Amino acid sequence: MILELADIQIQPGREAEFDAAIQRGVTQIIAQARGFLGWQVHKGVENPQRYVLQIRWASLEDHMQGFRQSPDFARWRDVVGPFFARPPQVEHFELLGESAN
Amino acid sequence: MILELADIQIQPGREAEFDAAIQRGVTQIIAQARGFLGWQVHKGVENPQRYVLQIRWASLEDHMQGFRQSPDFARWRDVVGPFFARPPQVEHFELLGESAN
Repeated sequence: MILELADIQIQPGREAEFDAAIQRGVTQIIAQARGFLGWQVHKGVENPQRYVLQIRWASLEDHMQGFRQSPDFARWRDVVGPFFARPPQVEHFELLGESAN
Repeated sequence: MILELADIQIQPGREAEFDAAIQRGVTQIIAQARGFLGWQVHKGVENPQRYVLQIRWASLEDHMQGFRQSPDFARWRDVVGPFFARPPQVEHFELLGESAN
């Protein structure tokens, strides 16, 4: 399992529209990809235009080759891209440790 | 519930020591704080010196007033601070949505 963290900054005043768009894009497009395991979207308290999208993938290749090189990646960017204030920062992580619950 | 995301960059070559230190600091110090609900630590793939610590708190006040203004905050920083390459970036988030599993 690999975690994708996408740090997204959107344009001010478009939060409510983006709240709906990102959830629609994840559930209707990304969730259909091979190796997709689950998602969470978090919304900034100090910075209400900041969103952190977390996606669990079976492998790095499922995200970077499987999804990103498929036509679905362009479809996803069509849904969320118009809200971006700048390109999102995307990196991958391995789970080092966690609490039991 | 509020999510704390701490984006941490450590000094190169100290990853194995820090892997142990951060888990010890969270479980022995932060996990004892009032309002602490759970934790995850993720380690960067593209950037092996980058760690993202996620802590769930009952409220923003439990973290910012309760924990950060207690003597335990200095104890925690004594454990992890010596590894930092620069001050960590800490912000808080609300859960907007997530998958069922």
